Amino acid sequence: MNKIVLDCYGGDNAPEEIVKGGLCALDVNPDLHLVFTGKKDVLNGLIDRHHARIEVVDATEVITNDDSPTEAIKKKTESSMVKAFDRLKFDDEVGGIVSAGSTGALLTGAFLKIGRIKGVSRPAMAAFLPTVKGDGAVLCDCGANVDCKAQNLLHFALMADAFYKLQTGKSDCRIALLSNGTEDKKGTELNQEAFALIKNTKLNFVGNMEARDVTSGDYDVIVADGFNGNIALKSMEGASLAVFQLLKQNIKKGGLRAKIGALMLKPTFRALKHQMDYSENGGAVFLGANKVVVKIHGSAKAPSVTAGILQAYNLSKQDITGAIKKSFEENGLSE
Amino acid sequence: MNKIVLDCYGGDNAPEEIVKGGLCALDVNPDLHLVFTGKKDVLNGLIDRHHARIEVVDATEVITNDDSPTEAIKKKTESSMVKAFDRLKFDDEVGGIVSAGSTGALLTGAFLKIGRIKGVSRPAMAAFLPTVKGDGAVLCDCGANVDCKAQNLLHFALMADAFYKLQTGKSDCRIALLSNGTEDKKGTELNQEAFALIKNTKLNFVGNMEARDVTSGDYDVIVADGFNGNIALKSMEGASLAVFQLLKQNIKKGGLRAKIGALMLKPTFRALKHQMDYSENGGAVFLGANKVVVKIHGSAKAPSVTAGILQAYNLSKQDITGAIKKSFEENGLSE
Repeated sequence: MNKIVLDCYGGDNAPEEIVKGGLCALDVNPDLHLVFTGKKDVLNGLIDRHHARIEVVDATEVITNDDSPTEAIKKKTESSMVKAFDRLKFDDEVGGIVSAGSTGALLTGAFLKIGRIKGVSRPAMAAFLPTVKGDGAVLCDCGANVDCKAQNLLHFALMADAFYKLQTGKSDCRIALLSNGTEDKKGTELNQEAFALIKNTKLNFVGNMEARDVTSGDYDVIVADGFNGNIALKSMEGASLAVFQLLKQNIKKGGLRAKIGALMLKPTFRALKHQMDYSENGGAVFLGANKVVVKIHGSAKAPSVTAGILQAYNLSKQDITGAIKKSFEENGLSE
Repeated sequence: MNKIVLDCYGGDNAPEEIVKGGLCALDVNPDLHLVFTGKKDVLNGLIDRHHARIEVVDATEVITNDDSPTEAIKKKTESSMVKAFDRLKFDDEVGGIVSAGSTGALLTGAFLKIGRIKGVSRPAMAAFLPTVKGDGAVLCDCGANVDCKAQNLLHFALMADAFYKLQTGKSDCRIALLSNGTEDKKGTELNQEAFALIKNTKLNFVGNMEARDVTSGDYDVIVADGFNGNIALKSMEGASLAVFQLLKQNIKKGGLRAKIGALMLKPTFRALKHQMDYSENGGAVFLGANKVVVKIHGSAKAPSVTAGILQAYNLSKQDITGAIKKSFEENGLSE
């Protein structure tokens, strides 16, 4: 299971940045093997040498964001993503897939081609976010499932707990439910049902939390339906971006003093941006599929691709699928 | 209608900061009259002079965040908030109420004591947020109604449109629905129903939007249910706070160069914080009640109180209630 299949034709910067990220991952990890899917001639041109740990699978089509996910997975059988899923499905050596392509198609592909872990009602997307104190927090679901039932949220909690523990090596994980207040009675009807279900597990459930504390470091796993998770994630992205844009405007208006100050703080701003760029720690992981599925951002450049591949390799080696199975069994949910 | 009633015992800094904010508002606006509710002896001590445009109404009780909203409004008849609502209800000269107290109690009070505008299914909370370009955007509902129906969202759109136009003096208002993508088919079932209803009005509805664009300035009114609106608002608050906290950490780690840079940028950072502090433009407005209701932050200091009072005065003078009524009539919804 030291092989990862890389969809080289997903995202805005395919195939150049995807391939570059793949080559870098191979340099970093000497045990890693990669299967590239995409237009063979182009890929071979980019690889530029005969690499012992690369295999190229020819795929002439590309799935785009304009394609209907289900139709694309079913009908675009020559696409780089479907070819990648086929390989993932049939090759026991391949532990995971990494793609910067259509999120919908990737989720559908995971569902239809790889299948769910026994007991999991719906796979969900988990993102590892930077926090002010501590080592980051997992937000799950951050966008895969728009309309959810309470049982889905319970499953997200179990899966994200296993993911957090593997990714950080910690044995404790404080789980909270994203709500409009910390009191037990807060939240929608859906939240209140989910609250009761999660409370009834062996998880370290600390209750409801407010969205302003997602990045505080007070919580390790934040459980939400995919709609609210998406709103939280995108709101935070937008606000951070706005702060930097407004700062730039104010520096321009601030005259020479501000400009010199900004120049002196340049390395600090750069360090801050790195710290906040969660794509440097890997991609969004689809939890609940029978193999590892990592979605990197559509606009990802090579370093994010490398991070996503190394993350997929580690999660496969650490057997995230087995960890989720075990957790569902322990909580009597594996049927 | 040049009188506003001020609940002097709401919030963390009551009554000192509330009274201070009230006195400042009277200085700024010579036409404004204020009715203070709260412990008469204490308030008279704080006012420190016989002010021709202040009237003090004695109220011995206080409603706290621990009180059940409905019970508090019904039973704490001697509280500063209930006394304020009573005055608002019976005095035609009083156009609005301003409070930093319990949001739940204020909403309940507006509902039970003042009543809704004909046709409005539920009053909603609207906040005016700063944007990167342009003059700000209205988010509605930002927290009052947790579980909503599509019709509620339609009403929020109509009310927020009227509010935006009065507050900015503009005649056009681009309205969008908060969703997980810009495509028409995005969003929950609730969103899709609301989309169809809002599209069917005379409003300038531009469709779905992503949460990362709330502060972009590309949209004037952002419609959401109170749960999603709260998550968006709080996520943005949390992320902005995190950026500043991480920046501080990085400046500390950045040595002398970073410290000098930060010192030189101090006025710029201060300007930025002011720009982003939306409480300086007023409070959250409860739209849909028969009189003006402004909620200022529980931790508000005097300047935010002043801003909230001036906003309440203006909205009352501009007849926001009449504007909402008219809009509902024009869209055949005033029954």
